[in-house]
Order: sequence, then structure tokens, then C-alpha cells
Amino acid sequence: MKKASIKDVAKLAGVSIATVSQVINNKQERFSEETIHKVMDARDELGYVANVAAKELKGSKSPLIGVIIPSFRLPFFADLIQSMQMHVPEHIDLVFMGATDENLEKSIYALVDRGVDALIFGRPIPKHAAVSQFLNKCGIPFLSLDQSVDLGAKDRVMVQEKQGGHLSAEHLVALGHKKIALLMADTMTDNMHQRERGFVETLTQHHLKPVARLQTALSKHGGLDVADAVIASGATAVFALNDEIAIGLIRGLYNQGVRVPADISVVGYDDTDYAEFTVPALTTVRQPVQQIGIAALNLIIKRLENLNRPQQMNMLDLQLIERESTGPAPGDRA
Amino acid sequence: MKKASIKDVAKLAGVSIATVSQVINNKQERFSEETIHKVMDARDELGYVANVAAKELKGSKSPLIGVIIPSFRLPFFADLIQSMQMHVPEHIDLVFMGATDENLEKSIYALVDRGVDALIFGRPIPKHAAVSQFLNKCGIPFLSLDQSVDLGAKDRVMVQEKQGGHLSAEHLVALGHKKIALLMADTMTDNMHQRERGFVETLTQHHLKPVARLQTALSKHGGLDVADAVIASGATAVFALNDEIAIGLIRGLYNQGVRVPADISVVGYDDTDYAEFTVPALTTVRQPVQQIGIAALNLIIKRLENLNRPQQMNMLDLQLIERESTGPAPGDRA
Repeated sequence: MKKASIKDVAKLAGVSIATVSQVINNKQERFSEETIHKVMDARDELGYVANVAAKELKGSKSPLIGVIIPSFRLPFFADLIQSMQMHVPEHIDLVFMGATDENLEKSIYALVDRGVDALIFGRPIPKHAAVSQFLNKCGIPFLSLDQSVDLGAKDRVMVQEKQGGHLSAEHLVALGHKKIALLMADTMTDNMHQRERGFVETLTQHHLKPVARLQTALSKHGGLDVADAVIASGATAVFALNDEIAIGLIRGLYNQGVRVPADISVVGYDDTDYAEFTVPALTTVRQPVQQIGIAALNLIIKRLENLNRPQQMNMLDLQLIERESTGPAPGDRA
Repeated sequence: MKKASIKDVAKLAGVSIATVSQVINNKQERFSEETIHKVMDARDELGYVANVAAKELKGSKSPLIGVIIPSFRLPFFADLIQSMQMHVPEHIDLVFMGATDENLEKSIYALVDRGVDALIFGRPIPKHAAVSQFLNKCGIPFLSLDQSVDLGAKDRVMVQEKQGGHLSAEHLVALGHKKIALLMADTMTDNMHQRERGFVETLTQHHLKPVARLQTALSKHGGLDVADAVIASGATAVFALNDEIAIGLIRGLYNQGVRVPADISVVGYDDTDYAEFTVPALTTVRQPVQQIGIAALNLIIKRLENLNRPQQMNMLDLQLIERESTGPAPGDRA
């Protein structure tokens, strides 16, 4: 796949290259809201990542950006990494490390030790005050990606997690469901708590509350294991906090002869690339994985150009993707 | 401001990059005093590998192993990486890079420049003679993982790919299938050719040949796109060269009202972690992903202890996992 150039962005936005350059580089004062929006939309649509640092660094070493994530196996992270890999400018080197709570500090040191120029954290940082202090002392900027908690990062890319829970609840309530179960992870990150909160608050607005809150492993096996408990809860609909759990649950329900969505509707979260291929295809809250990766690269590259620029935050929206795994509540059927 | 690269040091010292790498990494035996001094002086003058943070931390550095793969999105690689991440000893640092044919050499160079101690290649190397020569000169051992072609690596972990094709063919023939289609990737790696060969040779032994050989993208969408062509071929069974294609195909057949396995049986390849969750669950050739990761780590760590030990090769077996997507050929039913 060919990488988008600034020319492509200008063409799509119907403006000059100079305009694109200025808008993207935060010299927006002289442009109308409309122009700024056209340029930003074109940039996002094409996945363009500015190549600005290249000029300043030409002739010297490529900056190395380290990305630390919790697991390579969760498809959300596989998609995210692949998005960054596809959009990274030619002159930047990207390396990825997986880190558990236990070896996170060791992983950070390993990268700092090898002369990393910036870090992107796609996972929580347990002792974030100490880590933040250490990295500041080393002059290494870091960005937190998709984390609701403020980790002391200079720049943040966030997702409206609460809105995700809200969208899921509204969808199920609109379908007439009153008995709705919530499938949570054994270990809840702050992001997941936000999803939960948005979901429960929206149910409350409709004078409902979850008929069951079940916790299970954050995996397809976790979803499979909890199928019997979901059936026993009497729920006609389930919101699972990620697609993996939802896909495992659908298979578990199938094993018990329970039909999705005729008997039980299932909503997932992430819209990983399997969601449209399962039978039935999964209704889910789509995370803007491509945009998360692109926004993170854009912010960190600008940060490398100017360590002292003001803190930046990108807040990205979610979207409910309706497929086959949700339908009217059984009582509401003709 | 600008960081010096190993290239800059080589240029200033008037020696090759490989020489700089060896001198700096304490492999100085074969160089004259004069060369060593020139390199060290150039390094100091340019401030190369000035690493303040490291000194503040601990005495000795953990060895860094770089793993280069084609894509983070293919579940086979996500599983492989996760397996290595889980099994890596405490004292080793592992980083992962994705590399296309185009930026492979740049990725290798980026890691060598950061002082990587060993490399693992989970992808083909187009110009492997030159790469092998460069790494040998730098004194950096490398291992090739799951590649049928000899890349000049000191150590190799391989899988009996031909046996995989053989197992699939025997399974379908035993179920009475005579019209069998082969689903291949647009771009076939040597590994995939081995699978194809094992499959076709075994059919030949049974006086059969594929009714169709279809090529498509190595993805779920690739499998989906080719469903109509599979139906048109009149095949009662299909062997897809990876699970992704198989999963997409099953969904495509479902969209057309074709039943799996009643009308068409499907065999995949890899046994990625979705295979047991699809409806119907996928019959597939299981790759020993865990063992591949563990064997690679073991060999490369032994290699780091002794660069001159004899070349080692691990050859791993495959296994057919029979699930729900294969059944008797339609004509053979009661």
C-alpha cells in the first residue's frame, strides 16, 4: 500500500500544499474553521503522517520510537501495531515490546538504554509518577495511548470509552431488552471501568440495571467459560467488554443450542477484524484503531521536534456497528 | 542535538560499519591498535553510544534480541510473539519489528545500530547473501525461524511444511472427497509452496489432482472474495493454505447458503486461536507455535554463549486437528 503524501491530502481537501502544511503544523490562525476541517478530514481519511521531523534530522540517525503494549495476542493491539507500522514515516524506526506489570520498568530501561528517542505506552503504568520522573530526567518524551488515567504523559490519545458503553446500552434498550447482562474482565483496566460506567448509567436513565455482572478472563476462552452463567442469569442480551469475550460467548451459547440473536443478543467491543466474519457477525463498538495509531505518531513526531510545546490531547469517537448478533428482545417479537 | 550514528563513526574513523560494530562491542582481537584507537576516538568525538541513563541504572546490560516479522496482524505471528514474550528469560530483552521487503534492510540496520546482540528472522530475506555477510562481519548471529529456504543463518527452526499438505490431503481423501480445490496466496512464500507440494503429491498418489487452484489475498477478506469461485469449481472440499483464508471462505459460503461441511468441507492451516471458535469449528493443520518460539529462544541464547558452536537445526512436526468443518463427501453420505 502506497503511503499518502502531502500532495494527496491537498488534492483531496481541495487546497494548496502550503495550506496543508500550515494547518497540520499548527499555524492555523489565518484559515477558516472550514478549511481546517477539510484538511484534517483529508489527512485522517488518507492516514497521512507528516514527515516534518525528517528535514531537521536529515543526515543523522533515524529517531527510534519504542511502543510498549500489554500483549501481542489481543487482536486490538495487533491491529494497532499494524496501523502504526503502515503509517510510520520512512525516517522513523519503530520497535515494539510487550510488558507485564512486573517487567514494565525493565522494558522501559531496556529501551532507554538503547537510546530510544520517545516512548508510546499502550498500557497502564503502575508506578507512573516514578516512571514519568525518570523519563523526564532522561529527556525522553512519552505519549499515553488509549489510557483514561493521566499517566503524566506529555501527550495523550484517548477514546471516549464512556460513550462506548452508552452506545451499547442505547442499542439494546431500543431493541426492547430489559434483562441485560454485563460481561467484564477478571482484571479491569480503567478504560474498561469507563465502558462499564457509560453502560450502567445509560441503563439507569432507562430505569434498568444489569441482571448480572459476570467477570471472566479477557479472552475467547473466558467468554466460552461463562456461557452457562449467562444462560442461568435469564438475560436476553449481553454486553461484553471486548470482542474476544463476545466471540467465545457466542460459541458457548451455540454449544448449548441457544440461538444468537433469537434467544440472546450479544454486543462486543473493539470491532477487531474477526467481528464481521463470525456466524452470526458481531454487533460491536468500533474502536478507531487506525486513527489511534496515526494520531499517536503525529503527536509524538511533533513532540520530538519541540520537547517544550504545550501538552496535546486527541480525543477520538466511537461508533456502534450493527451486524447480526443483536435483534429484538424475545418478548417483543411478532 | 543530532545523535551520531554508527555510520557517522565509521566515516570519521575511515573504516567500515562492521569494524566499528566489532570494536565497540569488544570483539577487537582481529584489529590493529591503530584501528581500535581511530574507532574509539571517532566514537568519543561524536558522542556515539553516550548513554547517561544506562550508567545511572545498573552495571551490565541485558542482551538484546531483535525479532523481525512480516506482519503483526497475522494471528500466527501474534501467537508466536506472545509465546516468545512469555518464555523469554528474565535477563534477555526482546524487541519486535515489522518489516516489508522494501524496508527490511533498513530495519536490520536500525537494530544493529542500537547494539542488538542477535536477530531472529520470522520472514524471508530477499537479498540474504548480502544480509548474512553484513551480520557475520558485525559478529551478530541470526536465526531463521519457520523458513524453508536456507538464508545462511547459523541456526534454524523449521516446520515440516510438506507433511502439513500431506496430512490435509490424506484427511480429505479418507472422507471420500475426489473434487478438491486448493486455495493459495497471491504471493506464495517458499513455506507455502512446500504445503502445496505435499498436498498435490499426496493427491497424485491417490490418482487425483486439484479441480481448481485459486489464488487470493492472504487474509479473511481474501477467503471471502473467492467463495463464488470455489462454488463454481464444483469442489466438495477445499484446502486453504492458512486459517485466515479458510475462515473468510466459510463466511463467504455461509452468505451463499452453502453448508460447511454438508456441501463443502474446509481445511485450514496454522490452528490460530480462532479456529476452535468459528461456527463450524475449523479442521486445520496445527503449527507448533509455542514450540517454535521456545526452540528459537533456546537456540539463539546458546548461540550467544558460544558464537562458534556448530550450526543447529530444529525440525518440528505438524498435526491435523479434526473439528467440524470437514465431513464425508456428499456422494458418500447415507
